Amino acid sequence: MPLTPEQQAEIDALRATPRATLRAVSEGMEAHLYRAHEVLDHGFVRVIDYMGDDAAIVQAARVSYGAGTRKVNDDSGLIRYLMRHWHSTPFEMCEVKLHVKLPIFVARQWIRHRTANVNEYSARYSIMDREFYIPAAEHLAAQSTVNNQGRGATLQGDEAARVLEILKSDAARSYDHYEEMLSQDGQQGLARELARMNLPANIYTQWYWKTDLHNLFHFLRLRADPHAQYEIRVYAEAIARVVADWVPVAFGAFEDYRMGGVTLSAKAIAVLKRRLAGETVTQEDSGMSKGEWREFTEIWG
Amino acid sequence: MPLTPEQQAEIDALRATPRATLRAVSEGMEAHLYRAHEVLDHGFVRVIDYMGDDAAIVQAARVSYGAGTRKVNDDSGLIRYLMRHWHSTPFEMCEVKLHVKLPIFVARQWIRHRTANVNEYSARYSIMDREFYIPAAEHLAAQSTVNNQGRGATLQGDEAARVLEILKSDAARSYDHYEEMLSQDGQQGLARELARMNLPANIYTQWYWKTDLHNLFHFLRLRADPHAQYEIRVYAEAIARVVADWVPVAFGAFEDYRMGGVTLSAKAIAVLKRRLAGETVTQEDSGMSKGEWREFTEIWG
Amino acid sequence: MPLTPEQQAEIDALRATPRATLRAVSEGMEAHLYRAHEVLDHGFVRVIDYMGDDAAIVQAARVSYGAGTRKVNDDSGLIRYLMRHWHSTPFEMCEVKLHVKLPIFVARQWIRHRTANVNEYSARYSIMDREFYIPAAEHLAAQSTVNNQGRGATLQGDEAARVLEILKSDAARSYDHYEEMLSQDGQQGLARELARMNLPANIYTQWYWKTDLHNLFHFLRLRADPHAQYEIRVYAEAIARVVADWVPVAFGAFEDYRMGGVTLSAKAIAVLKRRLAGETVTQEDSGMSKGEWREFTEIWG
Amino acid sequence: MPLTPEQQAEIDALRATPRATLRAVSEGMEAHLYRAHEVLDHGFVRVIDYMGDDAAIVQAARVSYGAGTRKVNDDSGLIRYLMRHWHSTPFEMCEVKLHVKLPIFVARQWIRHRTANVNEYSARYSIMDREFYIPAAEHLAAQSTVNNQGRGATLQGDEAARVLEILKSDAARSYDHYEEMLSQDGQQGLARELARMNLPANIYTQWYWKTDLHNLFHFLRLRADPHAQYEIRVYAEAIARVVADWVPVAFGAFEDYRMGGVTLSAKAIAVLKRRLAGETVTQEDSGMSKGEWREFTEIWG
Repeated sequence: MPLTPEQQAEIDALRATPRATLRAVSEGMEAHLYRAHEVLDHGFVRVIDYMGDDAAIVQAARVSYGAGTRKVNDDSGLIRYLMRHWHSTPFEMCEVKLHVKLPIFVARQWIRHRTANVNEYSARYSIMDREFYIPAAEHLAAQSTVNNQGRGATLQGDEAARVLEILKSDAARSYDHYEEMLSQDGQQGLARELARMNLPANIYTQWYWKTDLHNLFHFLRLRADPHAQYEIRVYAEAIARVVADWVPVAFGAFEDYRMGGVTLSAKAIAVLKRRLAGETVTQEDSGMSKGEWREFTEIWG
Repeated sequence: MPLTPEQQAEIDALRATPRATLRAVSEGMEAHLYRAHEVLDHGFVRVIDYMGDDAAIVQAARVSYGAGTRKVNDDSGLIRYLMRHWHSTPFEMCEVKLHVKLPIFVARQWIRHRTANVNEYSARYSIMDREFYIPAAEHLAAQSTVNNQGRGATLQGDEAARVLEILKSDAARSYDHYEEMLSQDGQQGLARELARMNLPANIYTQWYWKTDLHNLFHFLRLRADPHAQYEIRVYAEAIARVVADWVPVAFGAFEDYRMGGVTLSAKAIAVLKRRLAGETVTQEDSGMSKGEWREFTEIWG
Repeated sequence: MPLTPEQQAEIDALRATPRATLRAVSEGMEAHLYRAHEVLDHGFVRVIDYMGDDAAIVQAARVSYGAGTRKVNDDSGLIRYLMRHWHSTPFEMCEVKLHVKLPIFVARQWIRHRTANVNEYSARYSIMDREFYIPAAEHLAAQSTVNNQGRGATLQGDEAARVLEILKSDAARSYDHYEEMLSQDGQQGLARELARMNLPANIYTQWYWKTDLHNLFHFLRLRADPHAQYEIRVYAEAIARVVADWVPVAFGAFEDYRMGGVTLSAKAIAVLKRRLAGETVTQEDSGMSKGEWREFTEIWG
Repeated sequence: MPLTPEQQAEIDALRATPRATLRAVSEGMEAHLYRAHEVLDHGFVRVIDYMGDDAAIVQAARVSYGAGTRKVNDDSGLIRYLMRHWHSTPFEMCEVKLHVKLPIFVARQWIRHRTANVNEYSARYSIMDREFYIPAAEHLAAQSTVNNQGRGATLQGDEAARVLEILKSDAARSYDHYEEMLSQDGQQGLARELARMNLPANIYTQWYWKTDLHNLFHFLRLRADPHAQYEIRVYAEAIARVVADWVPVAFGAFEDYRMGGVTLSAKAIAVLKRRLAGETVTQEDSGMSKGEWREFTEIWG
C-alpha cells in the first residue's frame, strides 16, 4: 500500500481543479495525471505533467516536410512512416514528467538512460524512509544456468524462506542502525551523507524523471523487453500502459515496429531468402555462430 | 509583415478554443500561446507548447531535498538559492516548444546549442519561400576596428546604399535561378536537394525548437548578451520577454545572477580586495594580461 | 585539388615525427593520420586524432561483465555479441577527431547529429575562401518523380549546361560582392558577420568534428545509406573506409548487423512466417499499408 | 592496499611496452598511464587512455577563428581567453578515459554527470567483491548543525567506535548473506541480479568513465569544491592532479577562472561598487537576502 491517506488527499485535490489551457490536450493522459500506478511492493509511477499528443508529432513532421507531406493525408500513416524510417525528431516533440518510487538497485539501471532530466530525493539532505523491496515468493528466482545475466526457476521451500528471512532481517537491522547512527539523542549524531552508506540497495528512493517520447520509447524497448530484469520491467510496463493512453497512434506504431519487431543481420537475411527458395539451411552453412543461430532459430524455427 | 491572413486565422482559431487540463498552468504563458512575436523583417517566435511554471521548479527541488527544504518556506527564496548555487536540475523540469522563423545564418549559430529538439523545414523535401533578411539601415554596420568578431559604426551614405542594393539583387537573382532550375516546364527540373545550394544564407527557414528552462537560460545568457550578433540577439530578447511572463520568479533570479552578474577570476578577486583596502592597483602589478585588465576596468573602473 | 603545397608540407611534417606512447595504438589508423581523403570537388576528411581500438571495446565490456565474459573467449565473438544485442556503451569507449572540409548545405545536415564536439571555421571572425561545390555532370540529377526527397535521372544536354552555368556564375558573383562589401578600400567595409549572409549554401566551410564510435556508427548507418543525399553520403563512405582500418572487427559487425541488416515489424515477421509455411500472402491480407508492402517486397520479393 | 600483485604486474607490463604514434602526446600524461592513484581505503583512479593536449585546444580554436587568431600569438593567452569567455568547444577536443574504483554511494552522485561514457561492473552478471568503504576516524563527522547538506565536527570517543563497529559488522553480515544466498551448494542459489539488493551502499564498484575536458572541468568545479561530500571530493582532487600534468596551461586557467573564481550577482556588483566608492553598506540596504548576504560577506568581509 504505497499511498498514505495524506498522499491520496493531495492527489484528489490536484485532480479536483481543472483549469483552462490553449495547449494540446490528451484526454487519455488527463485521466492518468497524478494518479499512482502501484509497482512492486511499495513503488509507484505517477504522471506529473506532459506536453503534446499524437497530433503534435504530425504537426512537427509537417514543419519539416512542408507541403510535401500533404500526400500522406492520413495522420496514422504518417506516424507509422516516421517510426518505420527512424525519423525520430517529431517524437521528441512530446515530453512527459513522471514521479517514480523505486528501489535503489532499479534506480541504478534506470539512470543509465542519460537523455532525461532527474531530481532525486537526496539522502545527503534528508532522511530515508524505512521501506524496502522484498520480492514476492513467485519472483524469488534462482540464477539462470544458461545465461549469466538472468533468472532460472523459482526458489523452492526452505531456500525461499531462508532468503526472504535474510532480506527482511538485514534490511530491518540496517535501518535500525541507520537511525541509531543518525540519532542526536545523547550523542552528536552521524552526518546523513555518511549514515546512508549502511543502507542496502533494496531501499526505496524516489525521483522526478522527465524525458521526451523518442527517448522514452528507447527506454521501453530495452526495459519492457523479456530480457530486462523483472524489477525494472514492471516499471516499464506500467509506463507503457500510460503511453498507450497518451499517444495511442504512436504507441501502436512502436509496438509493431519496435517491441514486436526484430532486426535481421545480412547473414540472417541470406538464410531466410534461401529458406523461402525452399532450401534447408544448417548452422554450419549459415555463416552464423552457434549463439547467433540459436537466437535466430528461436524466432524462425 | 510576417503573418499572412491565413496564418492569423489559424492562430485565432487555436486561441479561441480553451480546453480543460489538470496540469500546471502559467497564465502569463497562456497569453502568448501561438501568437507570433515579430523579429527582424520576416521572422517570428511563437510559443507552441510549454510544461511547468515557477511552482514546478519548487516542487522538483522539494523532491530532492525532502522535508529539509521546509526551512526555506518562501518559494522565491528557494528559486533564487537554486540559481545562485547552480542547482540546475529543478529548472530542467520546465520545457518550452517554440516555432521560429529565422535566416539560415542565424539558424547556423542557434543549432550549436545541442541540448534541444529540432524539426526544421526540409529544403530536400519542399521548396523554400522567397523571403530574405535585408538589414534595416541602422543595423548595417562596418567591421569593428578593435574586435575581429564584432561591428563598428553604421555604414554611411553611398556605401550603405550599395550594400543594400547588392543584398537585394543577389537574393532576388539567386531565387529566380532557384525557381528556374527547379522548373519542370519544358525540362526535367533539378532535384530540390541540389537546387537549394544556390540560395544565400539570408534566406529564411523555420523550425520547431524545444528545450528545457535550464538550457534555455544558457542560450539566453550567451545570445541575449551584448557581444552576441544583433540578428540572433533580437530572437533571444523576444524569447526572454516571453520567459519573463512564463516563470517570473525564475526569470528574475536569472536576470540578477546571470544576465546582470559577472564572474571574477582569483586574480580579479585579489585586485578588488586590495582596492577595497584602499590600495591603488595597476595592470602591471595585477597579475592580469592587458586584455584581461581592459575587461576588468570596463566594469570596475 | 583540395590541398595546397603548404598544407601537404604541414601534413608531411606531422607524419614524419612519430613519438612514443603507452596508449592503445591502431596501426591501421596510424596510416591515415593527418592524410586528406578527397571528397567532392574541394572537400576532404582527415583523421586528426583517435582513442582506442578493437581491444579497447573488449576491455570495456569485460569491466562490465567481469569474469563472466571469460566464456566468450573470442574477442571477435564478443564484439559481434555486443553489436547484435545493442550493448552500445563499450563502443563509446573509442573516440575519433576528424578535420572535414564540406559545403554548408552538407554541414547543415551533418550538425543534426548532436552527440559530437564541433569547432567550425567562424565567418563572423574570419573571411571565407572562394571555394564552391559545383556538381560533376553525372551527379546533376533531376527531382525524383516518385520520392519527394530524392533524385531521379541525370540532367541531359542543354539543361545540364544551363544549371552548371547558373551555379558557377551565381557563386562567383556572390563572392565578388562579398569581397566588395568587405573591402575597406575607400569605404568603411561591411562587418564580416553581415557580409557572409550573401554567400550561397554551396560555399565550403570546415570544422573539427569529434565523436565516439557508437555515435559514429549511427551517423554512418544514416548517412552511408543509399537514401542519404549523395553529397553527404560520399563523406560517410570516406569515413567508413577509415573506420574499417581503425577497428576492423567492430566495423565487420557493424556491416553485418547494421548496414546490411534490416528491421522487420511484427506484421512483416508474420508474413514471412506464413510464406515460410508455404502460404501466398498478398498486400490485402498482410495487414500492411501499400507503402509498407512496397518496401517489404523490395527486399523479400 | 587496493592493488593486488597481479594487478601491479599487469600495470607494469602495460607500461613496459611503448609504441610509436603520430598523434599528439602529453608527456605529463604518459607518466600517469595505467598507474593507480589510491583514493579512500580501497578505491583508485587510473588513466586508461587520453586524446589531445594543450596544443590540441589551441589548434581547434584556430580552426574556428582562422587567421584572425594570429593576433593572439601566445598559446597560453589564447587558452586563458577561451576559458574567460566560456568558449567551451575547444576544450571538448581533449578526451580522457579513467578506470575508477569507488563506493556505490559515490558512484550514485558521480553518474549524475550525464555527458560521459560509462561501462560499470555488472552485479547482474558477475559477483561483487567483498570490499567496503569504512571511513577513517578523522572523516567520521557529525551532521552539520547549520547546513542540512553537510558535516560538522568529528565524532568523538565511544560514538565513533560504535559507528565504526556498526558499519563494519553490517557490511560483513550483508556480504556473508549475499554469498550464502548465491551459493549453489546444496541449494538452487539465488539469481545474482536479486542477491545484490542485500549489499549496502558502501560496497565498492568500478567503472570505465570517459569524458571530454570541458565536461571534466565542470565535474571538477562541482566535486573538488569544499561543499562537495568528502568521499567524492578526494576522487575529484586525484583527477585534478592528473589533469594538471596532462594540460598544464588549461588547468592553470581553470584554477584561476573557475576553482578560484566567484560569480557576482547584479546586486553584489552594486554593493561592491558602493563600497569601492567609500560607502558602508548593510544587509538591509543591499537588496540581498540574509543567506545571500552571509555568503557575500564570507568572501568580501
